[in-house]
Amino acid sequence: MAKIEQVSPLAPERFPDLPAIKGASFSAVEAGVKYSGRKDVMLAVLQPGSVVAGVFTKSATRSAAVLDCQAKIDSDDPAGAAILVNAGNANAFTGSNGESSVRAVAQAVSACTRLPENRVFTSSTGVIGEPLPHDRITAKLDNLRDNLSETCMEDAAEAIRTTDTFAKGASKSVTIRGRTVKIAGIAKGSGMIAPNMATMLVYIFTDAKLSREELQTLVSDLNEVTFNAITVDSDTSTSDTLLVAATGASQVEVSSASEDFRTALHDVMRDLAHQVVRDGEGATKFVEVKVTGAASKSDARIHASAIANSPLVKTAIAGEDPNWGRVVVAIGKSGAAADRDLLSIRFGDVLVAQNGWVAPSYKEEDGAAYMKRQNIVVHVDLGLGNAEDTMWTCDLTHGYITINADYRS
Amino acid sequence: MAKIEQVSPLAPERFPDLPAIKGASFSAVEAGVKYSGRKDVMLAVLQPGSVVAGVFTKSATRSAAVLDCQAKIDSDDPAGAAILVNAGNANAFTGSNGESSVRAVAQAVSACTRLPENRVFTSSTGVIGEPLPHDRITAKLDNLRDNLSETCMEDAAEAIRTTDTFAKGASKSVTIRGRTVKIAGIAKGSGMIAPNMATMLVYIFTDAKLSREELQTLVSDLNEVTFNAITVDSDTSTSDTLLVAATGASQVEVSSASEDFRTALHDVMRDLAHQVVRDGEGATKFVEVKVTGAASKSDARIHASAIANSPLVKTAIAGEDPNWGRVVVAIGKSGAAADRDLLSIRFGDVLVAQNGWVAPSYKEEDGAAYMKRQNIVVHVDLGLGNAEDTMWTCDLTHGYITINADYRS
Repeated sequence: MAKIEQVSPLAPERFPDLPAIKGASFSAVEAGVKYSGRKDVMLAVLQPGSVVAGVFTKSATRSAAVLDCQAKIDSDDPAGAAILVNAGNANAFTGSNGESSVRAVAQAVSACTRLPENRVFTSSTGVIGEPLPHDRITAKLDNLRDNLSETCMEDAAEAIRTTDTFAKGASKSVTIRGRTVKIAGIAKGSGMIAPNMATMLVYIFTDAKLSREELQTLVSDLNEVTFNAITVDSDTSTSDTLLVAATGASQVEVSSASEDFRTALHDVMRDLAHQVVRDGEGATKFVEVKVTGAASKSDARIHASAIANSPLVKTAIAGEDPNWGRVVVAIGKSGAAADRDLLSIRFGDVLVAQNGWVAPSYKEEDGAAYMKRQNIVVHVDLGLGNAEDTMWTCDLTHGYITINADYRS
Repeated sequence: MAKIEQVSPLAPERFPDLPAIKGASFSAVEAGVKYSGRKDVMLAVLQPGSVVAGVFTKSATRSAAVLDCQAKIDSDDPAGAAILVNAGNANAFTGSNGESSVRAVAQAVSACTRLPENRVFTSSTGVIGEPLPHDRITAKLDNLRDNLSETCMEDAAEAIRTTDTFAKGASKSVTIRGRTVKIAGIAKGSGMIAPNMATMLVYIFTDAKLSREELQTLVSDLNEVTFNAITVDSDTSTSDTLLVAATGASQVEVSSASEDFRTALHDVMRDLAHQVVRDGEGATKFVEVKVTGAASKSDARIHASAIANSPLVKTAIAGEDPNWGRVVVAIGKSGAAADRDLLSIRFGDVLVAQNGWVAPSYKEEDGAAYMKRQNIVVHVDLGLGNAEDTMWTCDLTHGYITINADYRS
């Protein structure tokens, strides 16, 4: 099994200090699902009255745990909720065996926490096609329950890592009508052990008080411009899961129309999404792709996605090559509206191309100097309309090939 | 400038013996457009009465030469035709300057060959964003015209290479009503010099006699299952061009309904398409992706394309890893209809997965042994319907990153 020991050069300096979210408690334990010598299962328990919203992979081959979460996510049962996540085994593409494992874990968590089974959400990440040894998880549930604490979120972030090179967390506090609302979340993603996929799991908690429908609306909206706006290698996991829980414990009522709360939640989601990209396999550059002047919002996304997913653009950035020709190629192939002679391309503040040709002011040495930075902005203005979109990705390096090709499962 | 000297391990043993196509003559010359010490411009001249069909890149940022070909391709002018191609400069994204260069070359070819300008087709491949030094081409036209010969097709194939590691040619003869019809073609593609793109150019010639409309119908149909069914890195060039010319010199009349002729043309087109993949940047494996049991033809193509373009599948193949989990992921993300529990996956004859899980008969060592081959077949049966599709690609290796990231333009 491949282990990539090195921490991504794009990692934050350290794990952030996450505030406790009243009404949400956490614990993590070493269950030996696959790894040894590290915690690999986390449990979160949410107080009665909490609401949970979710967004899941659109993969047609999604895992049993994802299907189970989707069946439960629309419930308004006020009993509280539990989230149990294991690393090391994705329980994906494991046939009917996969569904029985999910049920076994959910029933055991329900019995142990005295929460109804339809309020137990589970996720699994790791190797696919192998049966989940769910007994190893259920054997640790009493231990997990007995160690629940509002201050253990960092442990939980550590426990859900697979080959993530760093644990991912983010938080934001916002003052609404003179009172503080807190949001804190953890994520995993973009590390890999063959034959895994880079599953992304995200769990965010807030003590704000709002209805499940309002929370779901907010989360679905913000997901489009955060987690759905990142790409490492264009491959979508069978297990991607985002759950956001609001405990209401702050007693501060908000809605999907509360600008302050929306902004704070957006900040936390974008921060975690960026951290996933910064842990992209083999990444050495963090890349923002900004498309403006598009004929429509969906055209802007199609262009941004074509650029962010282009192996030629991503290898050029890896090689610190201000190769605007490859950006032109990506725009041309995307299928969305573009006019060769109206578009302009900037690397950061350096105007590279305009009016269908290299910009008269452009000097190759300016582009080359800019590309040496660790954070790169590729900005394309299409000159057609007012719609815009932004996506984030990383470069494509020998490290990606090493992680994904050089090791046998 | 990066030069990859090594010949692809997937290259044919040698350039094939191409038959002369009566009514089509060729020459090639060293014009020094960018390269020195090699031929870099080819001219083909077709006798009066020849018809020409074409398929071009769908890129919204396509080059001036492509736009010019598209404007001329529907003409039924019986005057004959010329095709002039240069390597070293793509004349793409060169603003209005690009169009004047195309016109200058076409006018000069017209004057030199006494063919009407609307029967002169040009292509350019090489660096983008730099003005085409068209005077270097026009200065050699008399030389090109004076050396035209029906036996110079291999020279032409050499002259259109950029960083192709081998020249590409294919031919087929077919007996129709007791008389022989010949088809021969050349192609370039998949080599690269930063900041180029892997432009694909294909020129096929036949002495069959058929109308332009019939030829266009045939070429458009067959293009879907040959050149449109290959992918190296999902990036589409601004200059991709396929021209097929029929001189009629055999006096054998065929139509788009002539099975023998269709099969022969299909063979030549598929052969050249495969050669382009076999020269894919960094390729060490030739991969056929076969999707059967799909609900519709378009679903089959979407699945095949998702698998053939998946960096995770392509790196697994590079690593000789029978990683069927990544095939499941690609199917899941494609967006086309799939049922996890109905699909089966085979690597060659090795049944790997079925009924939503690893096949009971599957042994990892069988899969591992198969993946050591140079030609790999990934066969997915979706179990939903009767539609099928096949695509061809290559693996994704350190060689790809080296070619595209390790060199500065």
